[in-house]
Amino acid sequence: MSVLIVGSTALDSIKTPKTENPRLLGGSASHAAVAASFFSPVKLIGVVGDDFPKKYIQLYRRHKIDLAGLQILPGKTFHWSGEYELNMNHRRTLLTELGVFETFTPHLPASHKAAPFVLLANIAPSLQHHVLDQMGRAKFVVADTMDLWLNIALADLVKLLKRIDGFVLNDSEAHQLTKEDNVFAALRKIHKLGPKYVIIKKGSHGSILSSPRGFFICPAYPLHTVVDPTGAGDSFVGGMMGYLAGAKGSVDDNIRRAMIHGSVVASFCCEGFGLNRTTKVKRADIDRRVRELEKLTKF
Amino acid sequence: MSVLIVGSTALDSIKTPKTENPRLLGGSASHAAVAASFFSPVKLIGVVGDDFPKKYIQLYRRHKIDLAGLQILPGKTFHWSGEYELNMNHRRTLLTELGVFETFTPHLPASHKAAPFVLLANIAPSLQHHVLDQMGRAKFVVADTMDLWLNIALADLVKLLKRIDGFVLNDSEAHQLTKEDNVFAALRKIHKLGPKYVIIKKGSHGSILSSPRGFFICPAYPLHTVVDPTGAGDSFVGGMMGYLAGAKGSVDDNIRRAMIHGSVVASFCCEGFGLNRTTKVKRADIDRRVRELEKLTKF
Repeated sequence: MSVLIVGSTALDSIKTPKTENPRLLGGSASHAAVAASFFSPVKLIGVVGDDFPKKYIQLYRRHKIDLAGLQILPGKTFHWSGEYELNMNHRRTLLTELGVFETFTPHLPASHKAAPFVLLANIAPSLQHHVLDQMGRAKFVVADTMDLWLNIALADLVKLLKRIDGFVLNDSEAHQLTKEDNVFAALRKIHKLGPKYVIIKKGSHGSILSSPRGFFICPAYPLHTVVDPTGAGDSFVGGMMGYLAGAKGSVDDNIRRAMIHGSVVASFCCEGFGLNRTTKVKRADIDRRVRELEKLTKF
Repeated sequence: MSVLIVGSTALDSIKTPKTENPRLLGGSASHAAVAASFFSPVKLIGVVGDDFPKKYIQLYRRHKIDLAGLQILPGKTFHWSGEYELNMNHRRTLLTELGVFETFTPHLPASHKAAPFVLLANIAPSLQHHVLDQMGRAKFVVADTMDLWLNIALADLVKLLKRIDGFVLNDSEAHQLTKEDNVFAALRKIHKLGPKYVIIKKGSHGSILSSPRGFFICPAYPLHTVVDPTGAGDSFVGGMMGYLAGAKGSVDDNIRRAMIHGSVVASFCCEGFGLNRTTKVKRADIDRRVRELEKLTKF
């Protein structure tokens, strides 16, 4: 089955003490779509300007991503620029140019309205709502978010939580939303807001799923060196949704292995700038790391 | 087989916004010895004053802890007093009275010198050396530590690392020792200092083992409420060493399940003040949580 992914499609300029990487392909939808593409057909919903490099259209196409829902409008592509410190733990934004993204309204081609799996990747909650408004009842809808929307669009986000099956957020966002320090206490409160599946991401500490079949403690793949963590969370949830769409059987049967596969794609994402490493990965590389994770957690 | 445990034996007064708990049984050796006692016979090495409550001697005895190496000297027992904030994430020390601990010199009874498993729980590295000086070649020696010794006794600690098989420390201490932010990079550097087995504890995020058979990602048992985390790390390493001493087969064969058992005992420790919850636990309660952890991590 296929997965529909809406989110940001951007150009990221990432600076480190050693190097500058101007105008890399970035954005939540780009990372999630490439990650999902290893496991199932992907339909991308997004917007870029007429400055968007052709090589990135080709990159999407190499990953067999359906671009019927990608709008190319006169104007500039959303451009984010940030700088990392030496230890990669601190990042600061240098520049955010919204460009054509400022007035983005997602339009779903008729062929997209019955997509069984839907990932509302990180983007304004109002746009996540707008995508659901255009769709029939999907099999499994998951939304991601970021601290910005908790700050400036909380009411929209809380309304969204009643319309989705799964919600993914990181531990600091879970704390911000629930005022709970304890991950398991936070999970309980988030369920009360709507979603039956809640995943709290903890970066290099892995993630925790709370679902109708209980908790799952999902490890992160061990990395000695992190080159650029930008997009790792998007890769995680994209890989997870792609795996779910591509697997036979129920979501409950598959979601743990789906998270493991997402975790592995996220590990590759961290090993290069932007999508540089992820786009060099083969399915066999992913499967090898999944088998390693099996060995690393067995007792 | 038995496990010899040296460390601090103290009275802890723990204050929270809701309650005061004066003169609880505490100290690294007390927590580690009780945790180990669920799995194997324990020989305790420590010192207390003549004010040490008889009920705590009885508590040790109920756990069949061999007290031949516990010195009872004229003077006051080491007394630590601390205060927790409402969310339990911040603790501040109100008072430290060393008492008889100030001049403590561990003496090993003849019956203790051939103990096959040795846990040098958190205590000054010079005292950890002094215990090893009195012993024959043990089967497996593990040391724990704390940030204080990295600050004031680093040379002693680094010398100790060449004399032990396993070293246990938390993630902030690993960073302090190696200047590495990345856990796996830190593990590599610590191996170069001597120990073949290195475990980095990450609190509620679990722990990571690096050993001759590779890494193991060990989960923490999920807790909704933490009453008092004092002694959780000591309980983890105590439970682990007790399990290793009690199990048939090699350390390599058993260390993963040993860590899981230590992790479970630590979870009980967090659910009560001092040793209040841990001492009410039965082996069957531990085995139940171990089975739960198996389910929580399976994929």
